[in-house]
Amino acid sequence: MKHKLPDINQEFSEWYHEIVAQAELADHAPVRGCMVVRPYGCALWERIQAIVDQKIKATGHHNALFPLFIPESFLKKEADHVAGFSPELAVVTHAGGKELEEPLVVRPTSETIIHYMFARWLTSWRDLPLKINQWANVVRWEMRPRAFLRTTEFWWQEGHTAHETAEEADEETHLMINEYRDLIENYLAIPVFCGKKSENEKFAGALMTLTLEAIMPDGKALQMCTSHRISQTFAHAFDMKFQDRQGALSYPHLTSWAVTTRAIGALVMAHGDQKGLVIPPRIAPIQVVIIPISNDANRTVVMEYSLALKKQLDEAGVRTQIDYDEQKTPGAKFYHWELRGIPLRIEIGQRDIEKNAATVVERVEGKKQSVGIDGIVDMVQKTLEATQEILFRRAQERRAGQEMVVEMLNTIISRIENHRGYFKTSWCKECNCETVLKEHKASIRCLLDTPPTYASCFSCGKDSITDIIVARSY
Amino acid sequence: MKHKLPDINQEFSEWYHEIVAQAELADHAPVRGCMVVRPYGCALWERIQAIVDQKIKATGHHNALFPLFIPESFLKKEADHVAGFSPELAVVTHAGGKELEEPLVVRPTSETIIHYMFARWLTSWRDLPLKINQWANVVRWEMRPRAFLRTTEFWWQEGHTAHETAEEADEETHLMINEYRDLIENYLAIPVFCGKKSENEKFAGALMTLTLEAIMPDGKALQMCTSHRISQTFAHAFDMKFQDRQGALSYPHLTSWAVTTRAIGALVMAHGDQKGLVIPPRIAPIQVVIIPISNDANRTVVMEYSLALKKQLDEAGVRTQIDYDEQKTPGAKFYHWELRGIPLRIEIGQRDIEKNAATVVERVEGKKQSVGIDGIVDMVQKTLEATQEILFRRAQERRAGQEMVVEMLNTIISRIENHRGYFKTSWCKECNCETVLKEHKASIRCLLDTPPTYASCFSCGKDSITDIIVARSY
Repeated sequence: MKHKLPDINQEFSEWYHEIVAQAELADHAPVRGCMVVRPYGCALWERIQAIVDQKIKATGHHNALFPLFIPESFLKKEADHVAGFSPELAVVTHAGGKELEEPLVVRPTSETIIHYMFARWLTSWRDLPLKINQWANVVRWEMRPRAFLRTTEFWWQEGHTAHETAEEADEETHLMINEYRDLIENYLAIPVFCGKKSENEKFAGALMTLTLEAIMPDGKALQMCTSHRISQTFAHAFDMKFQDRQGALSYPHLTSWAVTTRAIGALVMAHGDQKGLVIPPRIAPIQVVIIPISNDANRTVVMEYSLALKKQLDEAGVRTQIDYDEQKTPGAKFYHWELRGIPLRIEIGQRDIEKNAATVVERVEGKKQSVGIDGIVDMVQKTLEATQEILFRRAQERRAGQEMVVEMLNTIISRIENHRGYFKTSWCKECNCETVLKEHKASIRCLLDTPPTYASCFSCGKDSITDIIVARSY
Repeated sequence: MKHKLPDINQEFSEWYHEIVAQAELADHAPVRGCMVVRPYGCALWERIQAIVDQKIKATGHHNALFPLFIPESFLKKEADHVAGFSPELAVVTHAGGKELEEPLVVRPTSETIIHYMFARWLTSWRDLPLKINQWANVVRWEMRPRAFLRTTEFWWQEGHTAHETAEEADEETHLMINEYRDLIENYLAIPVFCGKKSENEKFAGALMTLTLEAIMPDGKALQMCTSHRISQTFAHAFDMKFQDRQGALSYPHLTSWAVTTRAIGALVMAHGDQKGLVIPPRIAPIQVVIIPISNDANRTVVMEYSLALKKQLDEAGVRTQIDYDEQKTPGAKFYHWELRGIPLRIEIGQRDIEKNAATVVERVEGKKQSVGIDGIVDMVQKTLEATQEILFRRAQERRAGQEMVVEMLNTIISRIENHRGYFKTSWCKECNCETVLKEHKASIRCLLDTPPTYASCFSCGKDSITDIIVARSY
């Protein structure tokens, strides 16, 4: 039934498409640009949700649920915001059998409706900060959909906060981008660049956007998470006022930040290989799969041995599953779980039992060894931790090999088609110098915090102010 | 700032409306019929989700995510289904700046789109059963909205399964209604009637609907959860075929089942009192609130003592929060947490510390006692369990007092305005006898499993077949 995966080096895009389908992460929906997230994809998303939700709550935020529909007039209250989102909106014009007096937009993001509610809830500085998050689906009409990376409907959390001072709001944006960085680097094992977006690339309605940018094996950048300082015009537009400590009326300072189901696409691309997915152990819904290899004579013994091992691993907090399926050969099971990137496979057959051992096979390095049952839990835990580190290091090394530090625009232009990597260069921060990159389908992915490598701008030659990462992107 | 709650006995509906607002469970959204679920309401929903999700997974179902939008033509494939939902649909006609060729319906429920996908995934009996669940928002245009009970957008889980045989599908519907019953009775502490819906009242597109019906203090019934055997016409409409064990093409047998944010409304009504909410301990996001009562001299000592107690309770798995707020008086805090129905309040002041004790106050019975720190964790756990039982027993007794066993329709009609309860009677199962109840805004809530109390039907006088619960409903 299954086909060989396309060559990951030659046909990366086709490989991605096929692995998403074959590993049953997602399927096409019968609505343009929409996807169905299948159980294995959903299990990955639930792992991400659990980690992020814990971080959100530990940093003093509360979950709430806001409406799917936003009155069209709300979006028009902030000029940049509506200009940014207008082409992507889905609009409800009829409901309850009638044409609506005012069309309702299906939320592309919830700043406007949440700010409207904030304005209702806020009277005094004592009400601040407001620190709210919601887990939700959002819709942005997508002309070039690609599972997880760009879909008309996607799932995310969106945090929205209001603060007394600009400093506090700034701290919040940095706090949350750092929480995201922990998720992406220490769980998903994907190294990222963290920096500000340029004026051209920031969120529609933001004063400032912080981003985490990952570099994929094909050289394209993928925006993983963003954290925004929202423009004060939102607070003004929604008349969001409070009495400050001096008794005067003030407008709060706002932030928003999000991580989406796109993270699953990043995970697939960052670590996958010719055999399929490779899921880092800390994020894996299943860390260990046990394959009993038995015949009619020893079926019960093998099963009991497998169950006893599963129990030990469960108790140690290792997420373990036994593949009981009697319709499938062991070989078909190996293939099935390798394709799904389960970090460790444990085979249990007659000879393993006789040795009071089990055969442990690593997904990443393919190493296969017999391990005595007495020490197996410890060995599994250590191997999972080691695998996590190997994957991150491997991704770092891969990215290091994709870096090209260049001084001049011409070098970028001449290399961009074949480089399969990103460019680091220096910039004067003027918008015009960025525009020229667009002609070559590239953009400034983020501004780095480090001093500029070169004295002059890559494009105009004026004094440079900052280093930047330039790449094509998803 | 806060107003006295309306009299719960005289003005139940106003009381409900006020308590939802004052306890900050939900707020009106600026879109007709929609609500914002505020953090405390959301925390209750997350508790319900955690319990239900665990049950769903433990019974072998997998979570997935399906699109929000459904092509209009899909809904038309099953005649009863479209007839049932048409008046309630919200329709997207424009997206991405253009008019759509085919309008998209915002899902009122997901049978059609999930069945479409099932048909893609299903080829052989080996693929069965398909046991899928999704947590989602759905939209049904609501003309008479009421927070949690009837809102245009609401949140739920919807389980959808496909089975080889009708027997298996029947078992599934019963399995899931029993899981729900455990949630509603043993966590929410609300006694329910469990039975089939009449032909008139069953789900649009169901062969058979099982329901859990709770009786609210005002006498109205509230449908808590449903579990359906879905009509085979769905399988035919979506060409959902599989090769059966005999090699012939067969259509699978389908179920669906759901619990919604309405459960929060039931919780509010079932247990609330004149002081506010009363949340059963097993479902309470906060089971114990600690109120430090200190002055400038002993603030640190009181806080350390409070933190040490919280640590002990946390370690014992008791969900505990300290109210640190220095802006508020202890009295204001008592009021705040009573309104929110926290099962236990622990006050800690100078005298408590001197006695190496704490003052424990129960929300339900109002009992206040000094408890030595050494035994306090044990006492708290036992009191929480006892409170859970008291609430369920109290709700059972209240419901028993609302029962009126009647033989004849006339009695129902003459009593229905003033009874504040439900009627138990016997029925012949003919649809006509049900219609007359509608004229009095009542309906058959469910068919009971027990033999009929009376020999003849309450309405037509023919032989009766089953006992039924008759009531007005939310």
